[in-house]
Amino acid sequence: MVGRSRWQNNFSEWFNEIVQVAEIMETRYPVKGLYVWLPYGLKLRNHVISALKELLERTGHREVLFPLLIPENLFKKEAEHIRGFEGQVYWVTHGGHDRLDIRLALRPTSETAMYPMFSLWIQSHADLPLKIYQVVNVFRYETKMTKPLIRLREVTTFKEAHTAHATAEDAERQIREAIQIYKQFFDRLCIPYIITKRPSWDTFAGAVYSIAFDTLAPDGRTLQIGTVHNLGQNFSRVYDVQYERVDGSYEHVYQTCYGISERAIAALIMVHGDDIGMCLPPEFAPIQVVIVPIPYKDVQAPIEQTCTEIYERLKQAGLRVELDLRDLRPGNKYYYWERRGVPLRIELGPTDHANQRVTAVRRDTGERIHVPLDRVAERVPQLLREIETSMRRRAWEEFRKRIKTIASVDELQNAIHNRNVGRVPWCGNEKCGLEIEERVEGSVLGEELFTEAPKNRSCVVCFQQANKWLVVARTY
Amino acid sequence: MVGRSRWQNNFSEWFNEIVQVAEIMETRYPVKGLYVWLPYGLKLRNHVISALKELLERTGHREVLFPLLIPENLFKKEAEHIRGFEGQVYWVTHGGHDRLDIRLALRPTSETAMYPMFSLWIQSHADLPLKIYQVVNVFRYETKMTKPLIRLREVTTFKEAHTAHATAEDAERQIREAIQIYKQFFDRLCIPYIITKRPSWDTFAGAVYSIAFDTLAPDGRTLQIGTVHNLGQNFSRVYDVQYERVDGSYEHVYQTCYGISERAIAALIMVHGDDIGMCLPPEFAPIQVVIVPIPYKDVQAPIEQTCTEIYERLKQAGLRVELDLRDLRPGNKYYYWERRGVPLRIELGPTDHANQRVTAVRRDTGERIHVPLDRVAERVPQLLREIETSMRRRAWEEFRKRIKTIASVDELQNAIHNRNVGRVPWCGNEKCGLEIEERVEGSVLGEELFTEAPKNRSCVVCFQQANKWLVVARTY
Repeated sequence: MVGRSRWQNNFSEWFNEIVQVAEIMETRYPVKGLYVWLPYGLKLRNHVISALKELLERTGHREVLFPLLIPENLFKKEAEHIRGFEGQVYWVTHGGHDRLDIRLALRPTSETAMYPMFSLWIQSHADLPLKIYQVVNVFRYETKMTKPLIRLREVTTFKEAHTAHATAEDAERQIREAIQIYKQFFDRLCIPYIITKRPSWDTFAGAVYSIAFDTLAPDGRTLQIGTVHNLGQNFSRVYDVQYERVDGSYEHVYQTCYGISERAIAALIMVHGDDIGMCLPPEFAPIQVVIVPIPYKDVQAPIEQTCTEIYERLKQAGLRVELDLRDLRPGNKYYYWERRGVPLRIELGPTDHANQRVTAVRRDTGERIHVPLDRVAERVPQLLREIETSMRRRAWEEFRKRIKTIASVDELQNAIHNRNVGRVPWCGNEKCGLEIEERVEGSVLGEELFTEAPKNRSCVVCFQQANKWLVVARTY
Repeated sequence: MVGRSRWQNNFSEWFNEIVQVAEIMETRYPVKGLYVWLPYGLKLRNHVISALKELLERTGHREVLFPLLIPENLFKKEAEHIRGFEGQVYWVTHGGHDRLDIRLALRPTSETAMYPMFSLWIQSHADLPLKIYQVVNVFRYETKMTKPLIRLREVTTFKEAHTAHATAEDAERQIREAIQIYKQFFDRLCIPYIITKRPSWDTFAGAVYSIAFDTLAPDGRTLQIGTVHNLGQNFSRVYDVQYERVDGSYEHVYQTCYGISERAIAALIMVHGDDIGMCLPPEFAPIQVVIVPIPYKDVQAPIEQTCTEIYERLKQAGLRVELDLRDLRPGNKYYYWERRGVPLRIELGPTDHANQRVTAVRRDTGERIHVPLDRVAERVPQLLREIETSMRRRAWEEFRKRIKTIASVDELQNAIHNRNVGRVPWCGNEKCGLEIEERVEGSVLGEELFTEAPKNRSCVVCFQQANKWLVVARTY
C-alpha cells in the first residue's frame, strides 16, 4: 500500500479533486448536487454507455425514450412506490405564469410513466416478454451531502431496463439474465463486485425483492453500482397491465426492472486510482495511447517525425491515440496524462531513436517496455490487452482481501472500522439483521448470493443455526 | 401529384397517424405535448444524431453535458432573453415536501446555464475559440396545439452548440461554419431548405441577429429546422465572460449559438412521405433492406434458404437488413414495410428462383429491378446510393417549384393560399415587412440569404427601390 496514501487515507478529497483536474466534470455549477460533464469525461461516459447498450441489445432489449414529466395522479397510484420516493421528488408546479392543474414530477425512475403505456401495448401472450430500456436523466431531491457521480440531484446517466412476462418463472429467468448482463458489464469495466439480496427493509419501493451489485471504495465504503428488482404483479395490478392467455382468461403480467447509473463511472475512477490520479481500462479510456517525443538537440526533427509516423499507424489500427507536441517538459506531459488515466504512454528519446525503438510505459504498473519501431502497431494492442487483464486481476485481488469472513459482532465492528466488508453467519431472521445494524457502524448490504451457505455455523446474534451469509459494510 | 392526395390534402392527420403506425412514437402518453419514442423511431433518431455529431466533431466542437435545472437568479440575468422565454418556462418549486429557496427552471435552452461556466473557463486569448455542444432534452410550456416531433413540451433531442470568440470577425466566421455544417447535415438527410435572416422582430431573445433554415411541409407550411444566432457581446457582458488580450487588457468574448431539434426527424418523415407512409433515406433508415420470400408450393424451403443466404451476405456487407419470415401474405408484408419507409425490398418468388435472381423494389419510385443472385451483395449498396441521390434531387425539385417569385402583395396572398412560399422584393424597412404580415395570411421568414439581390425591382409595399428578397409563408 506504499505510495497509495492519499488515494486511500483521504479518498473523498482525492476523488473530488481528480474529477475536476482530470476534466471529468466541472464541479462549480451553482446548484448543489448538479455538475457539468466536460468533454473528456463525456467521452468516457459514452464508451461506458455503448458497452452497456451493446449487452442489452444483444439480449433482445429494445431502446425507448419516455418523457421526463409524470403527472401526480399517475405517479401516486402505487402506494409503496410513492412512499419510497415522495420525500425526494422534484415537483413542477408552474408553466410560464400559470399554475398547472396537475403537478408534474421529475422522474426519479420511470415505472409510473412506463407501465400505463404497457397496459396499452400488452394485449396477449404474443406480446410477451416485453423487454425495453432507456438511458435518461432522473432526479432526486437529495438532502444529504452530494458528491459528483455518486450522490446527485440530477443523475444524468440512468440506464433503466423494464420487462414484462407471462409467468413468475419467466420473470425469475429474466432476473438471472439481468444479473448475467451486469456481471459481464462490470467485468468489462474491470470492477469487482459482491452480489447480495437486499434485506426486506431495504428493498426497492414496490418490489418483491431486490438484488444489488456493490463494489468497494478505497476508504472501505461500499458503493451500490447496479440493482435488479423483481416487481411481481405489484405494479401490473395497479396499472392494469394484463394479457390474454391462450385459454382466453386474463392475467396480470409479472415484471422486473434493473438499473445502472453513472456510479459505474465513479467506480471506474475510484477502483483503479492511485495517488497520481486515474488509470482507465483501455476499452473505456477516451485516449488509449499517448505519444511523447523527448527532443534532444539536433535529433528533435527526426524524433518528432517518427512520432508522427507512429501516431498515424496506431490511428489506422483503430486506436484512440494522442500525439503530444506541446511546448512542455516531458515530465510535465507524463504527469498530465497519468492523472487522466491514459493506460499506455509511448516515449521516444535520443537513445530510443538511435536503437530504432520506443519505450512503452504502462500506467497501471509503471513498467517500461522497449518495442522495436517496426513492431509498434502489433505490440501496442497486445500491451493494452495485457493491461486490461492485469487491471481486472489486481482489482479483484484487492477486493477479495477486504471481504472478511467473521464469527462475532465485535469482530465485525473491528473489520468495518478497518475498512473491510464483513460477512457473518446469519439465521435469516430480520430481527437479527436489524440488531447487527444497530450494534455496528455499518449497514447490512444483504444476503450474499451465488456462494455456498455457511455450514455448522451459528448466527452472530441469536446463535441459532446459520443458513446465510450476511454482508455488512459502511456504505455510500 | 396523383396518388398523393391524403399526404398533401390531409397532411396533419396523415402525419399523426404515420408517426404512430410506423412506430416512431407512442402518442397516447397522458400529458399534452409529451410523447414516447418507440424502438423503431429511436433507432432513426439515433442515426440522425450520429450524423450531426460527426459533422460537429469533425469541425472541432467538443461534447459536454450541462444540468437541466437553472436557478431563477441565473436564468433571469439577461433581460431580453428572459423576456423572450418567461412565458414558456416550467418551474420546479418543491423538492419532496419542502418549498425550494430558489425556483429552478427546466432549461428551455442552455445559454444561462452555460455562460456562467464560460466565465470560469475562459481566461486568456489562448482559451479561444471555445466550441462546445450537447444533445439534451429542453422544455417549453406550449399553450398552442402540440404535435409529435414538431411542437412539444419536452423537446427530447435538442442539439445546441455554443461558441466564444476573441473578435467579432471570428464570431462571424463561426456563423458561416455553422451554416456550412447545417447545409451538409440537411443534404445528408435529403431535406431541401431555404436560408433566411430572421427579421428584427423575430430574432432569438438576446441575439444580435438570427439565421434560420426552413423546409416545406406537404400542406404548404414551412417548418423551421435549424437556427444560427450571433449573440455579439450581449450575454458575455451580463455573465462576465472576459479574456485577457496579448497586450494585457480585457475584453468580453463574442458568442454564437446554433441549434437543431427532432424537427429534423419530422422533416425527414414529411418531406419524403406519400399516401402509403414514410420513405427513409438509406443512411438513416433503421432497416435499409427487407427480404420477403414469396413461397410457392414445393419451392418454399429452397426459396427461404436462398433468402437466408442473401440476408447473411447483406448483413456481412454492413447493411441493416431484415428477413421477414412471418406467417403473413407477401402483400401484407409489403405494406407493413412500405409504411415504415424501408428504402429497398427484395422479393424472391418461384420465377425469380427459377432464374437465379431476386426482384429489388425501390420504395421511392416503385421501380422493380431484377438482380442476379451472385450480384446481390454488390448491386444492393449501389441501389441504396441511387435511391439517396434521387430522393435528394426529387425533394429539391418539388421544393423549388413551390418557391414563387412574386411582384405584389395580392399575388403573394394568392401564392400562400395555394400552399407556396413567396419571395417578394423588399426595401429592407421593418415597417414594410410588418405591413406584409398584416396583409397576408402568412409570416415573414426573413431576408433570403445566399442569392442575388433583386435588380430594378420595387418593394411590394412602399414601391421604393428593393434591395432584398423577403420570404413569406404560412409556418408551423
